[in-house]
Amino acid sequence: MENKKIGQLQSGDMVQSFFLIKAADCKITNNKKSYLDLTLVDQTGEINAKLWDYSPDSQPEYLPNTLVRVRGSAHEWQGKMQLRVDKIRVATEEDDLDIGDFVPAAPYSPEFMYAEIEGYIHKIKNQDIHDIVSRIIADHKEKLLLYPAAKQNHHAIRSGLMYHIMTMLRMGEKVSEIYVGLNKDLLFAGVILHDIAKTAEMNASELGIVSEYTVEGELLGHIIQGIKMIDQTATQIGADPEISLLLQHMILSHHYEPEYGSPKRPMIPEAEILHHLDMIDARMYDMQKVLGNVEEGKLSEKVWLLNNRKLYKSSIQNENNG
Amino acid sequence: MENKKIGQLQSGDMVQSFFLIKAADCKITNNKKSYLDLTLVDQTGEINAKLWDYSPDSQPEYLPNTLVRVRGSAHEWQGKMQLRVDKIRVATEEDDLDIGDFVPAAPYSPEFMYAEIEGYIHKIKNQDIHDIVSRIIADHKEKLLLYPAAKQNHHAIRSGLMYHIMTMLRMGEKVSEIYVGLNKDLLFAGVILHDIAKTAEMNASELGIVSEYTVEGELLGHIIQGIKMIDQTATQIGADPEISLLLQHMILSHHYEPEYGSPKRPMIPEAEILHHLDMIDARMYDMQKVLGNVEEGKLSEKVWLLNNRKLYKSSIQNENNG
Amino acid sequence: MENKKIGQLQSGDMVQSFFLIKAADCKITNNKKSYLDLTLVDQTGEINAKLWDYSPDSQPEYLPNTLVRVRGSAHEWQGKMQLRVDKIRVATEEDDLDIGDFVPAAPYSPEFMYAEIEGYIHKIKNQDIHDIVSRIIADHKEKLLLYPAAKQNHHAIRSGLMYHIMTMLRMGEKVSEIYVGLNKDLLFAGVILHDIAKTAEMNASELGIVSEYTVEGELLGHIIQGIKMIDQTATQIGADPEISLLLQHMILSHHYEPEYGSPKRPMIPEAEILHHLDMIDARMYDMQKVLGNVEEGKLSEKVWLLNNRKLYKSSIQNENNG
Amino acid sequence: MENKKIGQLQSGDMVQSFFLIKAADCKITNNKKSYLDLTLVDQTGEINAKLWDYSPDSQPEYLPNTLVRVRGSAHEWQGKMQLRVDKIRVATEEDDLDIGDFVPAAPYSPEFMYAEIEGYIHKIKNQDIHDIVSRIIADHKEKLLLYPAAKQNHHAIRSGLMYHIMTMLRMGEKVSEIYVGLNKDLLFAGVILHDIAKTAEMNASELGIVSEYTVEGELLGHIIQGIKMIDQTATQIGADPEISLLLQHMILSHHYEPEYGSPKRPMIPEAEILHHLDMIDARMYDMQKVLGNVEEGKLSEKVWLLNNRKLYKSSIQNENNG
Amino acid sequence: MENKKIGQLQSGDMVQSFFLIKAADCKITNNKKSYLDLTLVDQTGEINAKLWDYSPDSQPEYLPNTLVRVRGSAHEWQGKMQLRVDKIRVATEEDDLDIGDFVPAAPYSPEFMYAEIEGYIHKIKNQDIHDIVSRIIADHKEKLLLYPAAKQNHHAIRSGLMYHIMTMLRMGEKVSEIYVGLNKDLLFAGVILHDIAKTAEMNASELGIVSEYTVEGELLGHIIQGIKMIDQTATQIGADPEISLLLQHMILSHHYEPEYGSPKRPMIPEAEILHHLDMIDARMYDMQKVLGNVEEGKLSEKVWLLNNRKLYKSSIQNENNG
Amino acid sequence: MENKKIGQLQSGDMVQSFFLIKAADCKITNNKKSYLDLTLVDQTGEINAKLWDYSPDSQPEYLPNTLVRVRGSAHEWQGKMQLRVDKIRVATEEDDLDIGDFVPAAPYSPEFMYAEIEGYIHKIKNQDIHDIVSRIIADHKEKLLLYPAAKQNHHAIRSGLMYHIMTMLRMGEKVSEIYVGLNKDLLFAGVILHDIAKTAEMNASELGIVSEYTVEGELLGHIIQGIKMIDQTATQIGADPEISLLLQHMILSHHYEPEYGSPKRPMIPEAEILHHLDMIDARMYDMQKVLGNVEEGKLSEKVWLLNNRKLYKSSIQNENNG
Repeated sequence: MENKKIGQLQSGDMVQSFFLIKAADCKITNNKKSYLDLTLVDQTGEINAKLWDYSPDSQPEYLPNTLVRVRGSAHEWQGKMQLRVDKIRVATEEDDLDIGDFVPAAPYSPEFMYAEIEGYIHKIKNQDIHDIVSRIIADHKEKLLLYPAAKQNHHAIRSGLMYHIMTMLRMGEKVSEIYVGLNKDLLFAGVILHDIAKTAEMNASELGIVSEYTVEGELLGHIIQGIKMIDQTATQIGADPEISLLLQHMILSHHYEPEYGSPKRPMIPEAEILHHLDMIDARMYDMQKVLGNVEEGKLSEKVWLLNNRKLYKSSIQNENNG
Repeated sequence: MENKKIGQLQSGDMVQSFFLIKAADCKITNNKKSYLDLTLVDQTGEINAKLWDYSPDSQPEYLPNTLVRVRGSAHEWQGKMQLRVDKIRVATEEDDLDIGDFVPAAPYSPEFMYAEIEGYIHKIKNQDIHDIVSRIIADHKEKLLLYPAAKQNHHAIRSGLMYHIMTMLRMGEKVSEIYVGLNKDLLFAGVILHDIAKTAEMNASELGIVSEYTVEGELLGHIIQGIKMIDQTATQIGADPEISLLLQHMILSHHYEPEYGSPKRPMIPEAEILHHLDMIDARMYDMQKVLGNVEEGKLSEKVWLLNNRKLYKSSIQNENNG
Repeated sequence: MENKKIGQLQSGDMVQSFFLIKAADCKITNNKKSYLDLTLVDQTGEINAKLWDYSPDSQPEYLPNTLVRVRGSAHEWQGKMQLRVDKIRVATEEDDLDIGDFVPAAPYSPEFMYAEIEGYIHKIKNQDIHDIVSRIIADHKEKLLLYPAAKQNHHAIRSGLMYHIMTMLRMGEKVSEIYVGLNKDLLFAGVILHDIAKTAEMNASELGIVSEYTVEGELLGHIIQGIKMIDQTATQIGADPEISLLLQHMILSHHYEPEYGSPKRPMIPEAEILHHLDMIDARMYDMQKVLGNVEEGKLSEKVWLLNNRKLYKSSIQNENNG
Repeated sequence: MENKKIGQLQSGDMVQSFFLIKAADCKITNNKKSYLDLTLVDQTGEINAKLWDYSPDSQPEYLPNTLVRVRGSAHEWQGKMQLRVDKIRVATEEDDLDIGDFVPAAPYSPEFMYAEIEGYIHKIKNQDIHDIVSRIIADHKEKLLLYPAAKQNHHAIRSGLMYHIMTMLRMGEKVSEIYVGLNKDLLFAGVILHDIAKTAEMNASELGIVSEYTVEGELLGHIIQGIKMIDQTATQIGADPEISLLLQHMILSHHYEPEYGSPKRPMIPEAEILHHLDMIDARMYDMQKVLGNVEEGKLSEKVWLLNNRKLYKSSIQNENNG
Repeated sequence: MENKKIGQLQSGDMVQSFFLIKAADCKITNNKKSYLDLTLVDQTGEINAKLWDYSPDSQPEYLPNTLVRVRGSAHEWQGKMQLRVDKIRVATEEDDLDIGDFVPAAPYSPEFMYAEIEGYIHKIKNQDIHDIVSRIIADHKEKLLLYPAAKQNHHAIRSGLMYHIMTMLRMGEKVSEIYVGLNKDLLFAGVILHDIAKTAEMNASELGIVSEYTVEGELLGHIIQGIKMIDQTATQIGADPEISLLLQHMILSHHYEPEYGSPKRPMIPEAEILHHLDMIDARMYDMQKVLGNVEEGKLSEKVWLLNNRKLYKSSIQNENNG
Repeated sequence: MENKKIGQLQSGDMVQSFFLIKAADCKITNNKKSYLDLTLVDQTGEINAKLWDYSPDSQPEYLPNTLVRVRGSAHEWQGKMQLRVDKIRVATEEDDLDIGDFVPAAPYSPEFMYAEIEGYIHKIKNQDIHDIVSRIIADHKEKLLLYPAAKQNHHAIRSGLMYHIMTMLRMGEKVSEIYVGLNKDLLFAGVILHDIAKTAEMNASELGIVSEYTVEGELLGHIIQGIKMIDQTATQIGADPEISLLLQHMILSHHYEPEYGSPKRPMIPEAEILHHLDMIDARMYDMQKVLGNVEEGKLSEKVWLLNNRKLYKSSIQNENNG
C-alpha cells in the first residue's frame, strides 16, 4: 500500500494517496446501478477512477477542485491505467495539504517570478513607461500570481503567465545586447504588458485553471482589453501621449498577422522583437513539453499546436552544455 | 470667352473662369525654359494647364488649395483636354467665392446632414447610449461637418463621412422594420460611431481632402481609436459597462474579417447588420459613381475598388421608379 | 398521463402523445435481445425512445415519416431526456392529424406566403420580367409551397424557401426606397428566382425535409440549374435577350465569391443588392435561432454555420421596439 | 532596298515591304508638327513606324487591319528597332495579297483542322452525343475557322481554338488507349465543346484577333454560355437527358477550381481527363513559345502566364527523337 | 461450411477459410471476461472477428501479418458483417499458402512490371541518363518489387509503386508522340525516378503494407531523398552535371506547388509533363477504385482524397470501347 | 570645388570626386545629339549624371564597375539631384583607390568576420559537426568574404552574408543561455550553413553585387544546394548519418513555410530557433536601414520588403542605452 503519484502507477499497484478531483460524474451501468466516475490529478498526470455502487445523494461531497484521499487498486483498461476506488474521503485541514501541490505549475515560485519582473520594471528608466507598467502590474498582482498564459495552449499551467513573461524579459535583455539600438524601456514594458489582459479575458480558479472566457474577453479579446488598460492608466498618470501610443501599438501588433488578431503589423523595432520573443518562448515551451515524452531517436505524434508537426528527439549527445 | 466648367470644355474653347489649384509644379522644357505646370479642379473634374515662360521666383503665389482666375484656351493633347494659360491671378475677397464650391462634395449641405443625424440620436431611448453618442458627436462636430469617409475609397468627398452615416441610418431604420427584434438604439449608435474615429485617423483640409494619415491613425487605426473614444466617454458619463462593451464590440467587428481589420466577427445581430449596411452603402456609392460615366449597354473598365470587376449599365428602361 | 410536447418533458413524466418518427432502427442489446430504437419529433424538438423486447419482424410498421401514438415515461439518461415506450401504435385517419403540425415550419402559412410573393410579381411593370417570373413560379408552385431553403443551413424548415423569399422581397422594397435608382423589377425578379432551382437541386419530402441532392443538383448545382430555367422560359415567351441575360447574371453572381459558387461577381447594382439581401436574411435567421436558446447575458456555443462564432445575448432592455 | 520581314530588320536597313497596320495614331511633336505613329506587323513580329510631316486630314486611309506597302529605313531608337517611313500606300487588289499571311496563325490550315475534328466526330458512336456535337460545330463553323483560343493567353493566334481542340483530341485518343475504361464518346465530345462558347464570349476580327469580350461573355462567361448551348441543342434533338447533363458537367468542371471558374470539380473520369488535356496543351503551347526565344543553356525571363516561372532551355542533345 | 472470401459473406453463413490477421487485440467484456478481437483480411476486403472466452496467455500466437485458418459464423452487427470465431489456428507450411494472395496487390506480377520498366530504361539513348536510372533501379530492386506508392493514398497496394511507374511510362510514351519536341530520355528517367525514394521514406513489410515513415523520411521527405540519390549516383558515374541537375529538378518540381512539397515549379517541358502524368494516373486509380463500388446512375459518398468530391457512375452505355 | 560624397550634394554644388559607374548608356536627344547617361555610386548613395555632346565611339571606356574621376555641377531636376559632367576620366593605378570603398558594405572587415565565425566553429565540440562545418566554410572562403546575403533583400551589401551569419551566431549564443537544453553545436552549425549555398545560387562580382542567379540556383535553389553540400561533405568525412540528417533538416526547414521554400517545418528545437534568428536579423537589418532615412516623429513610406508596412521613428529619448 503505497503513497504513489499518478505518473508512477502500474497495473496491480495498491494505492493510498491524496489527489485533486478535476471532474466528477454520477453515471449508471447497463445494470441500472449508479457509480461515481472521477478524473483525479496530481502534478504528475491524471487518471480515471471508478467508485462502484455509489449512492448519488451523497454526490455534492466530491466536487471538482476538491482534494480527496483515495484507497484503491490500479489496473489497465483498454490500454490505459484506471483506478478502482475502495475508499474515498475529502481531505481536511488536519491533512495540512497545499492544493497548489496538485496542479501542474511553473518551475519557479510565484513570489520569485513576481520579484524578477519587478526587478525588470526597476530597470526601466523612462519615468512614464516605468509608472504605467508599475501601476498596471500592481493592480493585477493577485491574478498575475496564479494565472496561466492560456486555457489550453502554451504555458497553460499555474503561474504560467508570469513564467512566460519572466523568460521573455531575460531573452529581451539578451537581444538588446546584440541589437544595441533597441529601446530597452519600451521592450521590457511591451513584454510585461503584452498578455496582461489575459487576466481580464479569462476566468481562472485559484489553481490557475481557466474555466472559461469572460464576456468582455469574447467580445473584445485581450489585445483590445490591454490597449484600454494602457490608455486608462496613461491618462491617469498624465503620461506622454506618444509613449502611451507606442505601448498600445506594441500590444496591438504582437500577434503579427491580422488573422491571428493583430490588425496592424509591428511598425517599430521593439514591437517586431516583442513578437519574436513571444513566438520563441511559446515554441520552446511546447517543444520541450512534447519531447519530454519522446524516446531518443524517435518521433512524436503529430502536435496540433505546432501546425500538426511531429517532433524528433535526437539521439546525438549534447556535448556542449557545460 | 465663356465661364465654362472643366467638364464642359472642348478643343478650341476660349475660357475665363475660376478654378482651384490642386497641384503646382515649376518645370523646365528641353529648351531650358521654365514653365508652370498646374492641375486645376472644379466640381466637374480636373484638367492639366500650362503657363509658358513663367519665371519661377513668383511661384509661391500659385500654391495648392488656392483659388485662381484663369484666361486661356483649351485643346486636346494626346487624347486629353489641356489648358494653355494666357493670364492667371489669385482670387481675392472681392471675387466673393466659396472655395467649397470647387471641390466634389456630398449632395446635401453639412448642416442638413448634421441635423438629420441629430434627429436619429434623438430617437435613441436608452439614456446611456444616447449620451455616449450625443457627446462624441458634439465633440467631433467641427471635423464631422467636413471630413470625407476615406482618403481614396468610397465617399472620398467633402462631408462624405456624414453622407455615409446619414444614408446608413435611413437604411438601418428600414431594416429594423423588417427584423423587428433588433435593438434600434444599438443599431443607430453603431452606425453613427462606426467610422467616427476617421476624424482622428486622417488629417483632412477644410476642403474635405485628406492629405495624410495621422501617426496614431497609422499605429492603431480608426477601429481601435473609436473603441478608446467610447471607452473614455462611457467612463466619463458613468454608463452601464455592458452598453459600452456592446458599442465597442460593434466598432471592433464592423469590418467583419480579420484581414480587413476586425479581430472579432459580429456576435450580436446589431453588429451583423451594421456590417451589411456599411457594405451596401459603400458599394452603391461606388457603383453609382462608376456607372455615371458609362453609356447604356456598355461595360465600364475594371474597377479596382470593386475587386477589379467591370460594371454593366443596362439599357432596359426602369419602368418602376415612380 | 399528459399530452405533453417533447420540449416540455421532464424526468419522471408519464406521457401519452402523438409524435412523428424521424428515424427507426432495430438493435440488439449485449444480452442479444432485440429492441426498437426510435427518434421521435414534434415541432418543439426531438427525443430518443426505446421499445424494449421488440420483435423485429413487425418493424416495417414503424417507418420514418410515420405518425405514431406513444405511451411511456420520460427519464434522464446521461444528461439527455429519453423515452421508455410502453405502448405504440401507428396513427390512423380517425386520429385526424395533420402531419405538418409535427415538423418545424415557417411562421406563416404556405398559402399566405405564396400570395405575398404573387403580390410582388404583380408589382413588376416590365412585361418580360413579369412573365418570366410568373411562369417559373407557377411551374414550381407545388414544390415551392413545401420546400425548405436548404438541407441543413438557414431556413431548413418546411416552406422555408418561400419564407426566405418573402422576407427578402420586403427588405428589397425597403432598400429601393433608399437607393432610388435601383430597378425594382429586376430586384424583385432576382429575389424570387435566386434559389428557385433548389427545387431541382434537392429532393424533399412533403414534410419539407430534404432527403438528398438530385444527380443534376450534384453535377451542376442550383445556380446553373436556375440559369437554364430562365434561359428556357425567356426563349419560350420570346423575351428581350438583355432581360434574360441580366436575370441569369443575377442568379450566377448571387453567391458573390467564386469559392462559394459564383464564377462572376455582381456587375449591376441590383445583383449586388440581391447578394446582401440574401446574406442578411440568412444571418438574421441563424442568429435568431441560436439566440433563442441562450440566456440573457450569456454566450452561445460556437456556431459552425456562422464561421464558428459564439453569439452573445445582451441583457440590456430593448426600450425602442414600439 | 530589300523585301525584308520585320524579324530580320537591322539598324541601317533600307526596306520596301508590305505590312499590316495594327494601330495608327496621329500625334503632334513638341514643335507642333503632326506625324503618323504606326504599329506595323507581319508574321515575324511588330515594329513602330513614324511618318513625319503627315497631314491629318488624310488619316482615314491608314486604319488598323489595313495592308500597306511601305518604303523607309530602320534604325535603333533607345534599344528598339524603329522604322522611318519615306513612302506609304494602301495595298490594292492588284498586289494580290492574303491578309492572313500577315498575322500569327496556327501551323495547319483551318480547313485541314476542321476536317480533322469532323473525323473525330465521326468516331463518336453514341447517336445523341454525335448529334449534339455535330450540330453545335456546324452552327459555329464560320467563327471556329478563325477564332483564337483566347485574347491574350495560350493559343491567341488565328484558328488557335481549332488547333487547341485538334491537339487535345489526338492526345485524348492516346489517353483512352492507356485508361481503357474511359468513354471515348464523352471524352471527344467534351474536348470539342469545352471552349466552343469562346466564339460567343469574345468578338474576333476575321484575322483571328480578339478586340473585346461581348456583354454576355462578361456577364456569364464561356462556361455558362457553353452549357446553355448544349442544353438548347440537346432539347432540340430530343437527346437522353443524362447525356446532356454529363456534357454540361464536363464543360462546367473543366477549369477544375472554383477560383478559376468551375463551381463543380470533375465527378466523372472523362471530365477529370478533359481538364488535364486542356492544361497539358496550354502549357506545352506556352512553353514552346517561350523557349523558342531562349538560347540553349539559358533561362527565360519570368513568364507571367506560367505563374511567373522562368523556363530553362536545356543544352543536352535530344538523341531520342527519331 | 464454405471456403468463402470476405467480400462474399452474408449474415448466417458458416465459414471455414484462411485469412491474414491485420490487427489483434485482447479485450475484456463488461463481465470481466477476456476475448480476442481480430481484424481479418483477404484480397476481397476486411472483417471484424471475435473469439470469446479467449485466455490471453496464448496471445502471442495471433500476431498481425500471420495467416490463420478460421471456422465460424457470420452475422450482421449494427450494420456491418462480423465473424464469430469457433475455431482458429495458425497456418503451417503444409497449408502451402502464399501470404501475397491475401493482400490487395497490383494487377500485374512484380516481375512483369519490373521487366517492363527495364524495357523503357533500355529505350533511353543518352548514356548518362541511362546509367543513372539503371543503377538506381538496380540498387532498389528488392524494395521496388513490393512497395506500394503510398501509405494511404493512391496505389497503396503491394507493388503499387511499380504499377504507378509502369502506367506513367506507357502514358509518357504516348504524350511524346503528340508533343514531339519532348526529350523522351529525360521524361522516362523522370517518371522512373520521381517517387523512387519512397523506398527510403517509408518502411513497408514484405506484404507491401507501410507500417510507418522512416526518420529520414519525416525529416526530409522523398523528394529531397530522391535528389540526393541522383546526386550521389551521378557523381559516382561521372555524369554530365547538367543531366544530373535536370533530373534533380524534375524530382524537385513534380508536386508542382510549394504547399505540396515542391519549392520550384517545372521549368522544363519534361518536368511539366511529369507532373501531369503523375496526377492523371493517381486520379484515374482513385476514381476507378471508388466507382467500382458505386451503382450505375448513382453518386458515391464524398471522397476525401479527391478534394471531398462525390463521383458519379454514368448509366449510359460505353459503345466505343472496342 | 569640393571632394563631396553623393549623399551630401546640394543644388549648385561644384564637385570633383571619384565615383563608381554602376550603369552607363549612350542616348540621343530630341535634337539627335548623343550624350552619355551614367549612374554613379559611392558608399553614400547614387546619382544620375549626364555628359552632353558625348561621341559614342569612345564609349567602351566608361563601363559599369569602373572607377572614374568626375568634375561637374549638381542641380535639382524634377525633384531629384542630378550631375552635369564637365570632365571625366577613368581612374588609374596612381590614384591608388580601393574599389571596395565605393560600394555599400558590412560595417566590419571581411577578415574580422571570418575570424569571428571561425571562433564559433572552434566552440563546436562534436567532432563530426565541427568537421562538416569547418570543411564547407574553408571550401567557400573566397566567395564568403565578399558575397552579400541576397540580390535585393536584407543584407544585400558586400560581405553581407558573413555579417548576417556573425550576428546570428552571437544571438544564437545568447539564446542558448536562456534555453539551456539547446544543442549549441547543432545551432552554431545550422546558423553557419543555413545560407552557405547562396554562394552557389547567385553569381556576385568581387564588389559583392549579385548580377544574376546561376542555372542551378534557379532550378534547385540554395536550400537544396546546401543540403547536397552537407550530404557530400558528411559522406567524405564519414560522419554519423544522424548528424548529417539533422543538419540537412535544419537547412531544409529554415524558411519555415512551404510557400517560402521549406517543404518541412522545424522538427527539432534547434531548427525552430534557427528560423527565428534568421527572421530577427533580417528584420532588424531592414528596419534599421529604413529608419536611418526617417525623421523622428515621422513615418516611412510603405516598405515592400516588410509586408508593405510603414515604419515609425519614435521621438522619445532612448534613456536606457548605456
